[in-house]
Amino acid sequence: MDLNLKINEKNHVEIGGTDTIELTEKYGTPLYVVDEERIRNNYKRVFNAFTKHYPDFKIFYACKANTNLAIMRILEELGSCIDAVSPGEVYISLKTGFSPDRILFTGNNVTNEELKYIDETGVRINIDSVSQLKKLAKMVVPEGYKVSFRINPMVGAGHHKHVITGGKMSKFGIKENEAVEVYKTAKNLGFDPVGIHTHIGSGILDPEPFKLATNTLMDIAGIVASEADIDFEFIDFGGGLGIPYEPEENILAIDEFGEEITRIFKSKLNEYGMGKPSMYIEPGRYIVGDVSYLLTTVNTIKNSYRKFIGVDCGFNTLLRPAMYESYHHIIVANKAKDKATEKVDIAGNVCESGDLFGRDRLLPKVEEGDTLAIMNTGAYAFSMASQYNSRPRPREVLIKNGNSEIIREKETYEDLFRNQIIPKRLEQ
Amino acid sequence: MDLNLKINEKNHVEIGGTDTIELTEKYGTPLYVVDEERIRNNYKRVFNAFTKHYPDFKIFYACKANTNLAIMRILEELGSCIDAVSPGEVYISLKTGFSPDRILFTGNNVTNEELKYIDETGVRINIDSVSQLKKLAKMVVPEGYKVSFRINPMVGAGHHKHVITGGKMSKFGIKENEAVEVYKTAKNLGFDPVGIHTHIGSGILDPEPFKLATNTLMDIAGIVASEADIDFEFIDFGGGLGIPYEPEENILAIDEFGEEITRIFKSKLNEYGMGKPSMYIEPGRYIVGDVSYLLTTVNTIKNSYRKFIGVDCGFNTLLRPAMYESYHHIIVANKAKDKATEKVDIAGNVCESGDLFGRDRLLPKVEEGDTLAIMNTGAYAFSMASQYNSRPRPREVLIKNGNSEIIREKETYEDLFRNQIIPKRLEQ
Repeated sequence: MDLNLKINEKNHVEIGGTDTIELTEKYGTPLYVVDEERIRNNYKRVFNAFTKHYPDFKIFYACKANTNLAIMRILEELGSCIDAVSPGEVYISLKTGFSPDRILFTGNNVTNEELKYIDETGVRINIDSVSQLKKLAKMVVPEGYKVSFRINPMVGAGHHKHVITGGKMSKFGIKENEAVEVYKTAKNLGFDPVGIHTHIGSGILDPEPFKLATNTLMDIAGIVASEADIDFEFIDFGGGLGIPYEPEENILAIDEFGEEITRIFKSKLNEYGMGKPSMYIEPGRYIVGDVSYLLTTVNTIKNSYRKFIGVDCGFNTLLRPAMYESYHHIIVANKAKDKATEKVDIAGNVCESGDLFGRDRLLPKVEEGDTLAIMNTGAYAFSMASQYNSRPRPREVLIKNGNSEIIREKETYEDLFRNQIIPKRLEQ
Repeated sequence: MDLNLKINEKNHVEIGGTDTIELTEKYGTPLYVVDEERIRNNYKRVFNAFTKHYPDFKIFYACKANTNLAIMRILEELGSCIDAVSPGEVYISLKTGFSPDRILFTGNNVTNEELKYIDETGVRINIDSVSQLKKLAKMVVPEGYKVSFRINPMVGAGHHKHVITGGKMSKFGIKENEAVEVYKTAKNLGFDPVGIHTHIGSGILDPEPFKLATNTLMDIAGIVASEADIDFEFIDFGGGLGIPYEPEENILAIDEFGEEITRIFKSKLNEYGMGKPSMYIEPGRYIVGDVSYLLTTVNTIKNSYRKFIGVDCGFNTLLRPAMYESYHHIIVANKAKDKATEKVDIAGNVCESGDLFGRDRLLPKVEEGDTLAIMNTGAYAFSMASQYNSRPRPREVLIKNGNSEIIREKETYEDLFRNQIIPKRLEQ
């Protein structure tokens, strides 16, 4: 559910002060629309909630949520740092103006080639496994080389079983009971381990698992600091801050959250005598999740055994509902305040039965030609889009002060087979 | 499980008479490898199983499974027709040499613009909804315009709830009890309805649901033929023929299957006096599912709370395990016959906990540098690939008579932001 929902006097949904229906007339559908001001507000809200209580605080935007170049530029301007999970993300971050010291690389199952590339860029490496530490030791001169480690605490949380990234089933990080050993090994190899990192999950709206994880990570950090004699420059709590997708969900009370987490942080620093390291967090969804709507046109009303509202995009465009059964609130953008009168299924145009954006949604009477706004499509939406069913990926526009600009052109049919080569012997 | 599994004297898995380890040395990983001969054999096996009993039989390859241009060219050479579900698939089919009369378009939630494009190509339209019929009637001169209809029988089957494409929950087709009415409406509008189509599901290994659906469709067709006075030129049974993915699964006995289905077909034609229409089926997975391996290199062995084998690709490269919990058999390609000794999880390189290719797989002792062959990756594999986590999509090679040719170059980092535009005011 969009807590910033704006409806104008024409009964149309707005985004960034712009009428969504005018956008569809100008740019066609399907269309991702991004509101620049919300990105800035979301960033500042988190930043203020923490710096108020602990000034040496940095946001590492988890850019896997959305690496659109314009969005990256906005975050660069805001002073954000970047959590990069692949060499491609490091490449895009450098390209969009982030200096290497503002990028932290946390890769999972990293190849030698990738590690070499990251090393050459000068980006800090947050090591995910003992194997990776050994690889790096062979590749670089470890003396004075600053690294950090991702630790897997035994607690995990998240909105879907796929995005519980901590705990016993998780492929990420180094087991908490091996943390001291790995820091000692790193030092013995000559490295300078300056940071510690954890990440417990994704889409979390309840502060409790975070508080528990904060306590846990601080206890691990404290023990590592004393037993392996480490002076931490930073402690990184990862991401996972959720946004409400469903109308009845609560918003994460960010000010109280910032206060509580920094209180635990400071108290544990004090308890273990860890000085004043930087505090990092890595929000992705929280920064960009609610900044975008996906606009799509209804082209088919089908009264089958159920009533289907058919639209002009599918799970190739927005995967989350089909893959995670994620809820995205849907509004009839040109009938925004009309009374909801019927339960319908909203169906995409992909040739799979699972291609539904919602089942049993209560909507006003929908007609062919109406526009639906699928809300909260800023995170893990375009970034997961594919060309499945040979459908080109859609256009994306950015709204600032009521003005719209194309930030990504839609693909053509030719884009569907770029890089392909037909062997001579098979040519017509 | 790959029933054609070949292991050479070096203890390496082969594909198309080629050593997979030599392929990884030549082309790197991740790498999709496609065996041309298997495509040809699969096609011929189905073709023969049916034509033996009913000569006027055509295969409409469901190209959403894999629209690689080289694969399309092979199928064009074989004489296949095409089941296309989007304008992009029609475009690719025409580009690869299929004449319009060899393409049948079955779209779901089709826009006016898309319908106009399909009409202009001369490709036959298989209508999915009453709404679509009405749109077409406004767009073309219906007199003599040949169409068919997709009917949704109340029976559905498939390997995952997402791919049960028939039945009461399905968004596809026209309800069976409205079939007569829709054919009458089409005739009244001036159209010439010449075909009927259904599709009950996907990945089906058991002939029973097919037989039931065949009976059902033939009964519907018979009633439509007599009550709406239609002389069918073709009856299209859709796709859904499965392949075994797990070792204990049975292979679909295609010869018996072809015999049984054609027997029902002929008996029902006779019962309803429907003459001798063409018989169509639309296999996708059956033609290309087992023709490909995805080769990936182990870069990380992690002894966490569980043992993880980390590889150099993820669900962006092969989505099925993460999205559908699909089983893909995995073999250590350079230790093919070694005794399996340990249970491991095979983890991809995407930053999501759900990025696993298998849990608790019994494998020989795996070491970093080993190559895994993920089997049966010809269908719904590359076609569903994305650039999630800013990872370029991989290379693809085709094997013919022991020779390999690149049929798709791997993407570069620059490909990750093709079509993007940074607004001037946001430039550095």
